[in-house]
Amino acid sequence: MNTPDSSQGAERIDLLRAAMRQQQIDALMIPSADPHLSEYLPERWQGREWASGFTGSVGTLIVTPECAGVWTDARYWTQAEQQLAGTGIQLMKLSSGASVQYVDWLASHLRAGQALAVDGAVLGLAIARLLQTALDAKNVRLRTDLDLLEHVWQDRPLLPAAPVYEHLPPYASKSRSGKLADLRSAMQQAGANRHLISTLDDIAYLFNLRGADVNFNPVFLAHALVTPTRATLYVADGKIAPELRAALAEEGIDVAPYASAAAALGALPADATVLLDPRRVTYGTRQWLPAKLKVVEAINPTTLAKSRKSEPDAIHVRAAMEQDGAALCEFFAWLEQTLANPARAALTEVEIDRQITAARARRPGFVSPSFATIAGFGANGAIMHYRATEARHAVIEGDGLLLIDSGGQYLGGTTDITRVVAVGSINDEQRRDFTLVLKGMIALSAARFPRGTRSPMLDAIARAPLWAEGLDFGHGTGHGVGYFLNVHEGPQSISPSSMPEPHTAMEPGMITSIEPGLYRPGRWGIRIENLVLNRAAGQTEFGEFLSFETLTLCPIDTRCIAPLLLRDDEKRWLNDYHATVRKRLSPLLSGAALDWLTTRTENL
Amino acid sequence: MNTPDSSQGAERIDLLRAAMRQQQIDALMIPSADPHLSEYLPERWQGREWASGFTGSVGTLIVTPECAGVWTDARYWTQAEQQLAGTGIQLMKLSSGASVQYVDWLASHLRAGQALAVDGAVLGLAIARLLQTALDAKNVRLRTDLDLLEHVWQDRPLLPAAPVYEHLPPYASKSRSGKLADLRSAMQQAGANRHLISTLDDIAYLFNLRGADVNFNPVFLAHALVTPTRATLYVADGKIAPELRAALAEEGIDVAPYASAAAALGALPADATVLLDPRRVTYGTRQWLPAKLKVVEAINPTTLAKSRKSEPDAIHVRAAMEQDGAALCEFFAWLEQTLANPARAALTEVEIDRQITAARARRPGFVSPSFATIAGFGANGAIMHYRATEARHAVIEGDGLLLIDSGGQYLGGTTDITRVVAVGSINDEQRRDFTLVLKGMIALSAARFPRGTRSPMLDAIARAPLWAEGLDFGHGTGHGVGYFLNVHEGPQSISPSSMPEPHTAMEPGMITSIEPGLYRPGRWGIRIENLVLNRAAGQTEFGEFLSFETLTLCPIDTRCIAPLLLRDDEKRWLNDYHATVRKRLSPLLSGAALDWLTTRTENL
Repeated sequence: MNTPDSSQGAERIDLLRAAMRQQQIDALMIPSADPHLSEYLPERWQGREWASGFTGSVGTLIVTPECAGVWTDARYWTQAEQQLAGTGIQLMKLSSGASVQYVDWLASHLRAGQALAVDGAVLGLAIARLLQTALDAKNVRLRTDLDLLEHVWQDRPLLPAAPVYEHLPPYASKSRSGKLADLRSAMQQAGANRHLISTLDDIAYLFNLRGADVNFNPVFLAHALVTPTRATLYVADGKIAPELRAALAEEGIDVAPYASAAAALGALPADATVLLDPRRVTYGTRQWLPAKLKVVEAINPTTLAKSRKSEPDAIHVRAAMEQDGAALCEFFAWLEQTLANPARAALTEVEIDRQITAARARRPGFVSPSFATIAGFGANGAIMHYRATEARHAVIEGDGLLLIDSGGQYLGGTTDITRVVAVGSINDEQRRDFTLVLKGMIALSAARFPRGTRSPMLDAIARAPLWAEGLDFGHGTGHGVGYFLNVHEGPQSISPSSMPEPHTAMEPGMITSIEPGLYRPGRWGIRIENLVLNRAAGQTEFGEFLSFETLTLCPIDTRCIAPLLLRDDEKRWLNDYHATVRKRLSPLLSGAALDWLTTRTENL
Repeated sequence: MNTPDSSQGAERIDLLRAAMRQQQIDALMIPSADPHLSEYLPERWQGREWASGFTGSVGTLIVTPECAGVWTDARYWTQAEQQLAGTGIQLMKLSSGASVQYVDWLASHLRAGQALAVDGAVLGLAIARLLQTALDAKNVRLRTDLDLLEHVWQDRPLLPAAPVYEHLPPYASKSRSGKLADLRSAMQQAGANRHLISTLDDIAYLFNLRGADVNFNPVFLAHALVTPTRATLYVADGKIAPELRAALAEEGIDVAPYASAAAALGALPADATVLLDPRRVTYGTRQWLPAKLKVVEAINPTTLAKSRKSEPDAIHVRAAMEQDGAALCEFFAWLEQTLANPARAALTEVEIDRQITAARARRPGFVSPSFATIAGFGANGAIMHYRATEARHAVIEGDGLLLIDSGGQYLGGTTDITRVVAVGSINDEQRRDFTLVLKGMIALSAARFPRGTRSPMLDAIARAPLWAEGLDFGHGTGHGVGYFLNVHEGPQSISPSSMPEPHTAMEPGMITSIEPGLYRPGRWGIRIENLVLNRAAGQTEFGEFLSFETLTLCPIDTRCIAPLLLRDDEKRWLNDYHATVRKRLSPLLSGAALDWLTTRTENL
């Protein structure tokens, strides 16, 4: 991915301003979104990045004749400051829990009679309504019919065209017919006879299909329409091989061109009642439906179904975690040996990314990384979503903390793990920070809670040990994780910026990350992350309870711990965890990697 | 307050059904609300209670030709089951976090073309909108222009007429001119030149006035309209004495008849922009405004201002807490002596209420109880908002836990405290339950957290020790508390059923209860409650932090504790607390009460 230099950023904003003048637009908003509201965008929809130069995964660009700004959250502030420097584009810091602050900004900066343009095709329906309400109150017009990027982005990339393939048994433990039957009964319960799905992971899950249209998430561009008897996948021609197409047809699943979705939805009969999820459909897509059609709005039933991994799924995930943990042991053993060699060549963050991916690639079932590895040494560890590049990276030398956040897509699951290891000698302040983060991770990992607890409400349990010392971190504690699907998926979210609405309830089978952190800008960053599985933990007179099974298997660097800060129960948790890691990974390792595992899982 | 017997309940529902038929209404909803959305309702608006017999403070009655139900939350399930038995009215259990479940029920039970009636005068504007949206989707009509109670409630009480009095310095530490100036600057910032206030505690706070129109909350029925230069209080004639009226007039505050508010608001000029709070104004009141008038919706600025007690306020509250604690020591000393006397007459829950109120009444500054005392012995302690009555109460005899939740209104503050004490000998299971609740209270009381933390997010910290043992409680952990005002006030709320919206942010000066509990239906109930004050707790590179100063001063019964379940830091907290209680209450006590204090604050 190319990062434009700062003069390019300024130039492109000028081009956009010229297009705005031409179209009589007073403000332009470019969200980081595609027509499927994906997290990872096909290059064609990386317009915010193209125009601003800011490469973070979340950010909203707003341009007016007088100013331009990118709104992004605390994870990206350091990065955005660097990338926006010299472009004339301001970094607008989104405080946590206020993901739509730019709506207020627009409402207060635009005057009656002015017009804001946002390409409706990439504007979430729920956000569109918020925006509409705020602008209506100020008599500002919202234009969603213009894609100004089309006018100024000369070499704008085309749609991706990677082939679609099946996610097969045994990894796909439930057939698509079974999933469609469940979905149809949910549709019926909601009083709907049509269901429109635009979110790519919902589609991949439902049809047991996978693709490679974007980095890291094994999904493919499509919309889906489900009726009580048939289903149609709108996918670009040529992506689904004739044999697969025939197999799908036999199961009542038609394939139609991606571009035909608009017309097909526009032609829905008057007796259709469409179930759709306003947070998972764009304003533009919603406009395809006939204006008078009956619509039921609710969360996609597949979003809920997909989040609750079955027992067979969990067995595959545990096996994938063992392979992933073994790969990490090989990597960390290599890392320590390399660092110990005085004659070695310079070791860079980029090389760490390469080595960790290579170690995973040697493991059965591995498909791809599940996101871009974050390997940040020293001060780079404090840049929350740092990515080392060939052009810009640190060399691992001297003393410091090395933060590595990485993950893999396996046919039997998706992994996501962060570890921080000591390089050279580290100081007491670093050990104290590390231990406090660890206490937060242990507190939540060991928690038990009623089934149905709204996941955001658990956030404070991980944060309390840090808060007690006047510390905090600017991201959520945990996110849902897919099953050989998106590394970030809903509906649960352990975060103070998520609303504890009914769909965020904790249910058995959900996989979530627990990843408290601590970032000292310019000095070091710490994050410790495991994935956990929601498991039944007994029924009492107060209801059903859940607890977390820690899925991730990899030693936590005890050299970074200040043992006096840990209580006995916390030490016990850590020693038990390390005993499990040793027991389950040993059979997969030998030589230096096995030695490393044995040393790094010794009792504290 | 009279509780109708069950045949009366059934009869009144029949009367309502007859009125419904006459008006061609298919469903009737009676919320527990008045035109000011008060918690404690003037008798005139206790229609839900009159019709159903259920006396809990929160509940919504819905009547259709086929069925009738009262929706209420877990605090009231046991009580409602008893009070509704035999009336034919069903108890509809509201799960926590779903306070408007009845909206879904109405939407699914009513058919297109049918009509629901709710008296708009007592229907909150925010809820009215929810209801309207849900009913619109089903083509059900919402009629807000009918008050069916008017047709069937023969001896419906009139409006209360208690005199209004001033809340004076030193207790009122900020003048009404100062408060009005703050409010006007908030109005200006919101772009409004009028502000309509209907909530009685906001009005009492703003004007430094108090009343006695309802039990327990020292408020008076009024609406208020504030302009940039004047303010008008709409209060029934005769409630404000001529001298006070003259004094108010001098400060630019006019008094007009309560019933004239509708006409005055209806006559607002076209250039008026009215700030109003949709959660603190009813649908009926909103309808008074000219349809085309410009309205800015936001939380009442006084709701935020009132929640942040000043340092002078805090000094008065600490003094009130000392008086309250001393009264409780005298009461508890009396209780123990009485129980120890073999020749005593039967001691009832009702007598406890009388004695505790008498002890408070001997203290300077005491005005009234701040809510109806809950004194529940044994199984009655498990009824969360139990109230012993002359007709129905337990005798304190034998062994068990006695739960007492009580509070006082003082000129310098409002108190609310729950203690559980051992009567006779108690068993290990009771001690374990008590200790786990205590652990939850200590965990939250000792917490530190960033300023601005959304208060609902703190709930899990108090609950975690109970959850760990498969236990839970069906109410929030804490509520805001007024300053010689309502014992329940917003905007903060430490509860899983509150949404962590911006206005719930923790700010310095807020007073909140911490009151985890545990209820074993038919056996015993435990709740331990202190009030705490948000205090600055340092500024770090991660921002400003707050911690809680525990305001409530009264021993926690160590005879109920299982010491082995407490960690060292928890024991330390308790011993420190008891040392503070002893030190601050001793000077106010003598004789048996002082002896009791000394014994009950011994180190664990």
